[in-house]
Amino acid sequence: MAERAITIAFDVMGGDHGPLEVVRGAALLSLESPHLHALLVGDAEAIDQALAETRHNGERISVQHAPAYVAMHEKPSAALADKPEASVLVAARLVAEGEADALVSAGNTGAGVLAAARTFRLLPGVRRAALASVYPTRTGHGEKKDPFSLILDVGATVEATAQDLVAFAVMGAAYARIISRNPNPSVALLSNGTEAMKGPPRVVEANQILAGHPGLRFVGNVEGVDIPKGTADVVVTDGFVGNVCLKMLEGIGETVVELANYAYASRLSWRLGLAMLSSGLKQLKDLTDWEQYGGAPVLGFDRLFIKAHGRSRARAIANAGKVAAKAVSSELARAIQEGL
Amino acid sequence: MAERAITIAFDVMGGDHGPLEVVRGAALLSLESPHLHALLVGDAEAIDQALAETRHNGERISVQHAPAYVAMHEKPSAALADKPEASVLVAARLVAEGEADALVSAGNTGAGVLAAARTFRLLPGVRRAALASVYPTRTGHGEKKDPFSLILDVGATVEATAQDLVAFAVMGAAYARIISRNPNPSVALLSNGTEAMKGPPRVVEANQILAGHPGLRFVGNVEGVDIPKGTADVVVTDGFVGNVCLKMLEGIGETVVELANYAYASRLSWRLGLAMLSSGLKQLKDLTDWEQYGGAPVLGFDRLFIKAHGRSRARAIANAGKVAAKAVSSELARAIQEGL
Repeated sequence: MAERAITIAFDVMGGDHGPLEVVRGAALLSLESPHLHALLVGDAEAIDQALAETRHNGERISVQHAPAYVAMHEKPSAALADKPEASVLVAARLVAEGEADALVSAGNTGAGVLAAARTFRLLPGVRRAALASVYPTRTGHGEKKDPFSLILDVGATVEATAQDLVAFAVMGAAYARIISRNPNPSVALLSNGTEAMKGPPRVVEANQILAGHPGLRFVGNVEGVDIPKGTADVVVTDGFVGNVCLKMLEGIGETVVELANYAYASRLSWRLGLAMLSSGLKQLKDLTDWEQYGGAPVLGFDRLFIKAHGRSRARAIANAGKVAAKAVSSELARAIQEGL
Repeated sequence: MAERAITIAFDVMGGDHGPLEVVRGAALLSLESPHLHALLVGDAEAIDQALAETRHNGERISVQHAPAYVAMHEKPSAALADKPEASVLVAARLVAEGEADALVSAGNTGAGVLAAARTFRLLPGVRRAALASVYPTRTGHGEKKDPFSLILDVGATVEATAQDLVAFAVMGAAYARIISRNPNPSVALLSNGTEAMKGPPRVVEANQILAGHPGLRFVGNVEGVDIPKGTADVVVTDGFVGNVCLKMLEGIGETVVELANYAYASRLSWRLGLAMLSSGLKQLKDLTDWEQYGGAPVLGFDRLFIKAHGRSRARAIANAGKVAAKAVSSELARAIQEGL
C-alpha cells in the first residue's frame, strides 16, 4: 500500500461455510472498493487456494497466517485460552496494533466479542460493550426510508445497569446516524409499558436519564409490539432481553412459512394463493434474517468489530466489510465518545 | 341454585366493547353449560338492559350491582384506591368470600391482578403471582396436538427471583396438565442460550433447581427462536421479558400482513397470490392473537382469575368462563400446591 487505504481484517475461519465464502467476500471487495484493503487472517494454505480460484485484485488483499481457529460450538473463553493463535484473536490483535482498522468475523460470536474485549479498549465513559443488530421493520427509517431498525444490546452484556443502557443509547444513535445516514434517529427504551415508570428499576432510571439527555431524540419507552413495527430507529435494552427478542425475530420468518402451511391445509380457497406465494414467503423469511444485512456491530470499543452471520455468503461478507469501512472513515468511535 | 353449580364471577365493565359483549358471553354460557352459574358484576341497569335483549337462561345468571369501574387507561393502584366499589374489586371480593369460584374480567389487566392480589391469598410456597398466556405455535402440544404453548409470567411480576421462576414452572405445568389436557408437559426456561450456564444469575440458578425437580419434565433452556416454534409446552420467564415477548408475538400478525404488502409492491408475480390471500392473512393475524383463546390465567392464588382480552367478543368471554370452570372443577390450585 503506497497511500494508506482503510484496512479491514477478516477472520477467515469459523464461519458455517469455511474459509471459502469469506475469501470470496474479500475478493468481491477488492474488485469493487478501490479505497479498501482486506487483510485475511486464517489458514494461509486454505486462503491461498481459495484466492487462486476466485477473481480478485491481489494488490488490495494480503494474508496473515493463523494456525488455529475457534469453531462454532466451542466455549469462547476456553477456546481462546487453548488457542492463543486462533484466527479471530490474531485478527483482533492486528486491529488493536493498528495493522488494520476494523475486524470482521463470521465465526463464533462469543469468541469474537471476547477477542475484541481482550485486545481493544473501551471508550471513555463506556463500562460495557454492546452487540447491536440491524433488523427489518414495517416502517421506513430516516430520510432514505430505510426499512431497518437497530436493537442493542443483543447479547454482549447480559445484565446492564441504567448507565449501561444510557451508553447503549448513545452508541446506537451514533451508529444509526453514521451507517444508516439517519441524521436524527429516534431512540427508545424497551419496557413492559410505554409509561416512564414502567419496568424494573434499571429501566425506570435509564428512562429518567435519557429523558434529560441533550444529544438524543429520546422517544420514551416502547413495548414488544413496537419491535417489528419499527416505532423507533434505535431500541435499547440489555443483552438478555435483546438476545431473546432478536432470536424471536429470527424465528418469525420460519413461523410465517409454517402458519401459511397450516392455513394451506385448512382452507381450499387459499391454496392457489399460497402456492404462488411459496417463493415470496421464502424471501420474506430472508427479509427477517437480519444478519444478511451487513452483520452486527460490537460497539463501545475504540475499534470496530462487525460480527457477520455464521451463514454469511460472499456478498454478506463484502457488505460487512463495507459497513466496517464506512464506520472507520466516518469516525464512529469519535462520534460515540462525543455523545457520551 | 338448588344444588351448588360452579359459579363464575364476571366483571362486566371495562372491556373495549362495554358491558354488552360480556353479558352476551355469559348468556351463551347459560345456554350451553348447565353446570355453570354466571354472577354478573357491574352496572345493574346496563346488565339488565343487555340481558333483556339477549337470549339467555335466567336460572343460571345472577346480577350484583357495582357502582363504579376501572377504565382501560386508568392507573390500577390509583383507580382501585379511588373506587373501592369498582366492579373488578367487588367481583374479586365475592370470589374471595366464596360467593363465586373464579373471576373473569376483560377490563384493565393491572387492576384485575391488583384486585386479585388484594382479595385472594397466595398459595403456600408461592411468593409472587404470574400472569400466564396461551399462544399459538408451529408445533402441536400434548396428546391432542394442541397448537398452543403457555408462557409465564407475562407481566404480573416484573422482577422474578430463581425461586419465583421455579414456582412459575410448577404453576404453568399444572395449568397445561389440567386445561390443555397435556399429561406430561415439557417445561423450559427462557434464556439467551440453551446451555445451563447461560443467562443472568437468577436464570442459571433456576435452571439448576429445575433440573433436579422431580415433578416436572424440565427440558432445559430455550431461546427466543423457540417461542414461535413451540419447542416447549410451558415457557418460564420473568414478567418483564415475558411481557416483551408476548407483545412481540401480538405484533407479528400485523407484521406478516405488512411484509406481504411490501412483497406485493416489490414483485409483480406475487400479486395475484397475495390478493387471494388477504382474507387468509387476516385470519393468520387472528391466529397470532393469543387472547382470542380463553384468556390469560393469573396463577399462584387460592382462587383463579382469568383475564380475557379487552377486545373479547361474547364467544371469547364464554370460553374464558369455561376455562375458569374447568380449572375449578379440576382443582387447579390444589394441583399447583402439590407440585410445590
